[in-house]
Amino acid sequence: MTPERFNRLRATLDKRQPDLTVLTDYVHKGRNLSAIVRTADAVGVGDVHCVIGDKDYRSFRGTALGSHRYVKVHRYRELQSPVSELKAKGFQIVAAHLSEQAVDYHDVDFTKPTALLMGAEKDGISDEASELADIHVTVPMVGMVESFNVSVAAGIILSEARHQRELAGLYQQQRIDQAEYELLFFEWAHP
Amino acid sequence: MTPERFNRLRATLDKRQPDLTVLTDYVHKGRNLSAIVRTADAVGVGDVHCVIGDKDYRSFRGTALGSHRYVKVHRYRELQSPVSELKAKGFQIVAAHLSEQAVDYHDVDFTKPTALLMGAEKDGISDEASELADIHVTVPMVGMVESFNVSVAAGIILSEARHQRELAGLYQQQRIDQAEYELLFFEWAHP
Ligand SMILES: C[S@@+](CC[C@H](N)C(=O)[O-])C[C@H]1O[C@@H](n2cnc3c(N)ncnc32)[C@H](O)[C@@H]1O
Ligand SMILES: C[S@@+](CC[C@H](N)C(=O)[O-])C[C@H]1O[C@@H](n2cnc3c(N)ncnc32)[C@H](O)[C@@H]1O
Repeated sequence: MTPERFNRLRATLDKRQPDLTVLTDYVHKGRNLSAIVRTADAVGVGDVHCVIGDKDYRSFRGTALGSHRYVKVHRYRELQSPVSELKAKGFQIVAAHLSEQAVDYHDVDFTKPTALLMGAEKDGISDEASELADIHVTVPMVGMVESFNVSVAAGIILSEARHQRELAGLYQQQRIDQAEYELLFFEWAHP
Repeated sequence: MTPERFNRLRATLDKRQPDLTVLTDYVHKGRNLSAIVRTADAVGVGDVHCVIGDKDYRSFRGTALGSHRYVKVHRYRELQSPVSELKAKGFQIVAAHLSEQAVDYHDVDFTKPTALLMGAEKDGISDEASELADIHVTVPMVGMVESFNVSVAAGIILSEARHQRELAGLYQQQRIDQAEYELLFFEWAHP
């Protein structure tokens, strides 16, 4: 391994945020999932949780749907179980959802343990997801379109989360525990 | 026309920002261009300038590459002419470019007349574009990936521009001139 690569792996692990994650609610286009996972990596998110429909689940089983060398993509057939797990760990569930009660994405505290929930390309956030969420956030729009592409919306909100966490110093200290750090370093370093 | 649609068209025209635009430097995937144009509309940008290669230019001639009902997409075969036109109108050219001299995207004044220049999927900002730009901006990244998807990067930076312009009150007053307003209203209202 070159020293550059060694340093790069460590710099990434040094900044991973175990208390920030993305949850997708039936987002099913591979290129959207891939872009979301790529953005997750870029802001220090090491785990992404994807609820995908039965049909997609079967057809994508064993394939690389949204998979990424440095981000773990966990797949589910329904939303309840990942939400319960995350809530049990103290995560707030923040749904990107253009509902009546949604707040501006700048007004959410993303330094708290947070799972950002993104809705499906066509149907958006499901009723179930809307109810399970603790907060709804919106990215204000001033044009004729009704919404952003889902991977663009995720990028906008995750960048705000990164910015808040940078200001709070959360990238300046190791956030994942030492055992996890060493395990990931080992996995990444030995292809 | 329904009263809802009438109001929607007017609300959009009321917020259009004639001094904010996007310029793409050989971005060539249709879905990336479409996502960029959709985001442009959402932040009040009514004109997008796309430099596309000779090959793409020929194959996309007459097709809907990135085209949009409410955003004018201007296509060019090289970068010099749109840049000269925009500079002559007083626009700063802000290149999204991971260069040594790049500044954080929060540190650019997007309330000034601005053209945001986005680079190609594989090659990024060309040397020519890098030199023509007044400023280079970067969206900080803390992971293993080298860059965001181009439409995601555009969305992140344009949202910051929208946010700054909102704080500066630029969406609270009609910004396009009355003749343009009426012309666009007429075009949009009569399909
Ligand atoms: C293409 S949109 C879905 C649009 C769908 N027709 C609806 O009404 O929700 C896909 C997802 O992107 C996210 N999204 C898109 N634009 C957004 C915005 N302006 N604010 C918050 N989330 C947004 C939401 O998670 C949404 O469910
Ligand atoms: C996929 S990237 C190109 C990557 C290319 N290999 C390079 O080195 O520039 C496509 C375009 O998205 C924009 N972009 C992507 N990530 C960015 C970031 N972190 N900061 C600023 N612009 C970015 C830039 O305009 C870039 O040219």
